[in-house]
Amino acid sequence: MRTFEFQNQPTNLPSTQVDGTPLKPITQVLMDRRATPHFKPEPLPEDYLEAILRLAAQAPSGYNLQPWRFIVVREAEGRARLQKAAMGQAKIGEAPVVVIAFALKDGWRGDMEAILQEGARRGAGTAEEVKKQQRAITEFLGAFPAAVWTNRHTMIALTTMMLVAEAYGVDTAPMEGFDPEAVKREFGLPKEAEVVALLALGFAEPPDKPYGGRLALKEIVHVERYGRPWVETEAAN
Amino acid sequence: MRTFEFQNQPTNLPSTQVDGTPLKPITQVLMDRRATPHFKPEPLPEDYLEAILRLAAQAPSGYNLQPWRFIVVREAEGRARLQKAAMGQAKIGEAPVVVIAFALKDGWRGDMEAILQEGARRGAGTAEEVKKQQRAITEFLGAFPAAVWTNRHTMIALTTMMLVAEAYGVDTAPMEGFDPEAVKREFGLPKEAEVVALLALGFAEPPDKPYGGRLALKEIVHVERYGRPWVETEAAN
Repeated sequence: MRTFEFQNQPTNLPSTQVDGTPLKPITQVLMDRRATPHFKPEPLPEDYLEAILRLAAQAPSGYNLQPWRFIVVREAEGRARLQKAAMGQAKIGEAPVVVIAFALKDGWRGDMEAILQEGARRGAGTAEEVKKQQRAITEFLGAFPAAVWTNRHTMIALTTMMLVAEAYGVDTAPMEGFDPEAVKREFGLPKEAEVVALLALGFAEPPDKPYGGRLALKEIVHVERYGRPWVETEAAN
Repeated sequence: MRTFEFQNQPTNLPSTQVDGTPLKPITQVLMDRRATPHFKPEPLPEDYLEAILRLAAQAPSGYNLQPWRFIVVREAEGRARLQKAAMGQAKIGEAPVVVIAFALKDGWRGDMEAILQEGARRGAGTAEEVKKQQRAITEFLGAFPAAVWTNRHTMIALTTMMLVAEAYGVDTAPMEGFDPEAVKREFGLPKEAEVVALLALGFAEPPDKPYGGRLALKEIVHVERYGRPWVETEAAN
């Protein structure tokens, strides 16, 4: 069995934004966040980066399997190589930190036992139940297309990372335009790695992108069954 | 071209949790959130449900294409059918609201033009640029496995929904155990729908699930390249 070190819920987290103002409420986070087009060279303080990583790691996952993995790229030379593998996007060269989010296909098979035992140790079941769970998970996840499952889960953690960063006053830019094989080659990733997304973090160089609007709820939300659109309350209009 | 109604950033949002206490900061959201094992029958106030949907709709997406779609299931009869299609999970029968998150494969092809034109109208480009963008997007997304792209994006919105709900004091339980063909049949979804996840929303019936622990940062974060583990600062330990 693989062994792992585990973490508790983080403590000693920064309690304000980087500039000392209060943390943004999530309602504000969702208004302010844009895919930052350009970044200042200003570095991201180490304690904030670590807090963002620790909070992203608290994201939920099926059976707590946490299949997400990250490479934190800060050296200019590494960002230059990543930029080349990502359609030359300027923000990768500009941002002080770029995170490569990936997962190992079928990584859960090797990780499962240690994670479930840790859960049992913390009160979520007995050793007996862990054995049963392992069989059930192997059957359930074994039937899934691996790329779909790992992509879903990695996006839970990456979305959490992005929202936490914005709450701390750190701007981000998620990117899906890259050559996964080039990224894997440049950063030593194993063949079975599934590169899911990139996330640049730092501080925006104005001007920010304009808000592009969103589809109205009636276009995206159905009531009780497909084809019956959501009717907004008057208060929301 | 398809036409759509669009929404601006939401206003008139509830400014407190359902019980009147202040909104939870995102740091607290990530500590408190658990996959709720059981729900009280207590309904979710309509204005909170709508706020959660409107804020989830503010999530980011590639080219702002917003491929996520939702069915809000509240009727007991509908939840009973969904429960049957989802391995009989009790919380689907208990929770006042269960959201089916899905996307239409290749839906972006039909949605793209109207969304980009709305963006241009709001200052993100000209009609000329929209034409060019359409060609670039068609080439880029056309080369992607449709299931991977739609799953990634739907999880951005669903994760946002889950974190916003917790900030408002609304408990959630994401679920990946369901028969997608049965869900599609029961809720009238078209053949090309990709059912991504279910999310139950409501108020937890104690006891809550214990915290299962998380992999330490050194297990999931690499520095500059794969295989060089993150070293935590003393402050974080």
